[in-house]
Amino acid sequence: MSIVVQKFGGTSVADARKIHLAARRAIRAKMEGNQVVLVVSAMGHTTDELVRLAYEITDRPSKRELDMLLSTGEQVSIALMAMAIQEGGYEAISLTGAQIGMLTDSAFTRARIRSIDAGRLHDQLRRGRIVIVAGFQGVDADFNITTLGRGGSDTTAVALAAALQARMCEVYTDVDGVYTTDPRLVPQARKIDTISYDEMLELASLGAGVMHSRSIEFGKKFNVIIHVRSSLTDSPGTMIMSQPPGMEDVVVRGCTLKRDIGRITLVNAANRPGLVARIFEEIAARQLMVDDIIQNVAAGGDVVQLAFTVAGDDLREARLAAEAVGRQFDVAQIEVDDQLSRVSIVGVGMRSHAGVAARLFSTLAAENIRVHNVSTSEIVISVLVGSADGERALRAVHAAFELDREPAAT
Amino acid sequence: MSIVVQKFGGTSVADARKIHLAARRAIRAKMEGNQVVLVVSAMGHTTDELVRLAYEITDRPSKRELDMLLSTGEQVSIALMAMAIQEGGYEAISLTGAQIGMLTDSAFTRARIRSIDAGRLHDQLRRGRIVIVAGFQGVDADFNITTLGRGGSDTTAVALAAALQARMCEVYTDVDGVYTTDPRLVPQARKIDTISYDEMLELASLGAGVMHSRSIEFGKKFNVIIHVRSSLTDSPGTMIMSQPPGMEDVVVRGCTLKRDIGRITLVNAANRPGLVARIFEEIAARQLMVDDIIQNVAAGGDVVQLAFTVAGDDLREARLAAEAVGRQFDVAQIEVDDQLSRVSIVGVGMRSHAGVAARLFSTLAAENIRVHNVSTSEIVISVLVGSADGERALRAVHAAFELDREPAAT
Repeated sequence: MSIVVQKFGGTSVADARKIHLAARRAIRAKMEGNQVVLVVSAMGHTTDELVRLAYEITDRPSKRELDMLLSTGEQVSIALMAMAIQEGGYEAISLTGAQIGMLTDSAFTRARIRSIDAGRLHDQLRRGRIVIVAGFQGVDADFNITTLGRGGSDTTAVALAAALQARMCEVYTDVDGVYTTDPRLVPQARKIDTISYDEMLELASLGAGVMHSRSIEFGKKFNVIIHVRSSLTDSPGTMIMSQPPGMEDVVVRGCTLKRDIGRITLVNAANRPGLVARIFEEIAARQLMVDDIIQNVAAGGDVVQLAFTVAGDDLREARLAAEAVGRQFDVAQIEVDDQLSRVSIVGVGMRSHAGVAARLFSTLAAENIRVHNVSTSEIVISVLVGSADGERALRAVHAAFELDREPAAT
Repeated sequence: MSIVVQKFGGTSVADARKIHLAARRAIRAKMEGNQVVLVVSAMGHTTDELVRLAYEITDRPSKRELDMLLSTGEQVSIALMAMAIQEGGYEAISLTGAQIGMLTDSAFTRARIRSIDAGRLHDQLRRGRIVIVAGFQGVDADFNITTLGRGGSDTTAVALAAALQARMCEVYTDVDGVYTTDPRLVPQARKIDTISYDEMLELASLGAGVMHSRSIEFGKKFNVIIHVRSSLTDSPGTMIMSQPPGMEDVVVRGCTLKRDIGRITLVNAANRPGLVARIFEEIAARQLMVDDIIQNVAAGGDVVQLAFTVAGDDLREARLAAEAVGRQFDVAQIEVDDQLSRVSIVGVGMRSHAGVAARLFSTLAAENIRVHNVSTSEIVISVLVGSADGERALRAVHAAFELDREPAAT
């Protein structure tokens, strides 16, 4: 009998009515002949509420105690979900992270999964029960309760699907799948039927935040087919898998826009040893995150052009860091730009297709959009453009790569 | 080093301020050189709120899932309490019922404790930590979460004190101890300094509901000294122990009033075999609780006079039961009274003191209060009086046995 893991996020279990809807979905999967495991998050804003309680007590809650506190949110949800399924006439049992032997390391609030004891789960499934597991939580070797950090319930679901060798991990959410780009910006955006883990990772990290990248990495590692779909409709969503059918035909899978990017450029600095290292040491010491680093050299290597980007909020602090190092290394000119956006195209297909970059640049040129910086990885090309050009660039690129059209069948 | 267990009920941890107050008390006990274990209940009305959530899902929640749900209330409290103690500069660790190996049977919502693994507790105490344990909860042999039912946190505290051979179990509550009678009815009521388990059990079951009788029974069984005291003041409360000092001198420890008692009397029934048994079978089949049963026989045993009392709410149903059986056994007359109250006096000392009953009856006679029925146990004498006479009877008895005065020192 094949196993299906269904994951319901906080908005999908926010009240009694939604819990009953989710329960019905689990029951339907059971009636269709599957063994069914549910993973649920805390209801609605429960986690925020618990965090607020902690900060009423202290400004610096211990992480172990935070995990003890936050894990109750999911425990409430699983009990209610089990009741809802039982009310629907089916056998169900709820299990905490500890009860399924979800063993993690001891990094409280951001623990990493070490192993899962699938025995108890299989035992309950064999008895015909729908098993409801608390997402986001585990226990360490000393039996302390841990939590997995952001996107933890997705990670729980995908890890369980891997441990149980489930046929599928269905992730129910408030959108109906992964889109070629943000539909609020590009009305022609189209739901993607299938996407590879690598493409999804790039789309997730670039801002199409349907699933947390960590759970996608987990899915990739254990080859779990993830179906991201709406909890409100029955339409199929987006399947995330290693080799989407017809993959060769799709060059670009989607495109993204990230706004409010700041850039710092050290102009024509003398290329002295240690300059670049010092800059990023200073940045790291200030807990800032750098996105792109673009470096060119000129004058036979004696002159360096170094640019890097940060989130707009971090720009002021990053500038101070750059200036401090710049003084030590006699950098004459530091330029700061705060009106930039990044447009990226993502697609496994571009590995084997020439001319993708060319088409991107000619599209932007035809729109008379100036490209500031360019960075690339194996399946991504990103360009920095002026903030005023961002949306127009995204729409032009979406159209140029025909992302609004269904890919041709293989 | 001696161990102290402190228990804080829901009203004593209802908000951040009260949690900090409780934390300070624990820290003080620690500073005084004790090893300190805290047992806490769910905050304020949390448990009611969780029950409400369950009944939004279903009218008949499974008891296992109810326990899964309700146990989160205490888990929230222990995490916050640990944070508060840490904020006060002391080491603390919270532990769930599962984490302290609080093993129970599998009677969900009213589980009974089988054993406690004191090892982890001692280990944490030896490290100098204040240990905060979730009251009310345990796990069964299959690692399902269970709860102990009403008064469960008191039971947890007393059981822990027994398992750890603690010097004392302090129960903090919103009253400052156990009183000789209800101070709202008798302004002369006096706080009792020391009381025996047996007396406390009678007072608890008769309505002076400071502690649940189950935890007192536990204390009696394992000889745990229980100190019931106010969470708002530093004054000593009431010590519950096996042999209160000066016990011989105290004849009556306290007195109680229970209102709204209904009585059913089978008048001059033929004493046929099986009549009495059938009555109470019928009562039990209707899930009614009987308080007192008073039976007399006359005419050389041929005529029986049988009276029993029930809570006023159950009187109508009890009457139907009695009438049904009465018809089968040709009982001519069944009387029903619904305007009764029970006044009881409780004291271990009355075992060895003659004349206690005499003083009770002469007191009531002097007040011109008619006594309907009388029932006695080894340390209790109860009388039924008319509802209109209840409070007056209580006050007269309280004065007659000098309960308003400090007992003489031995």
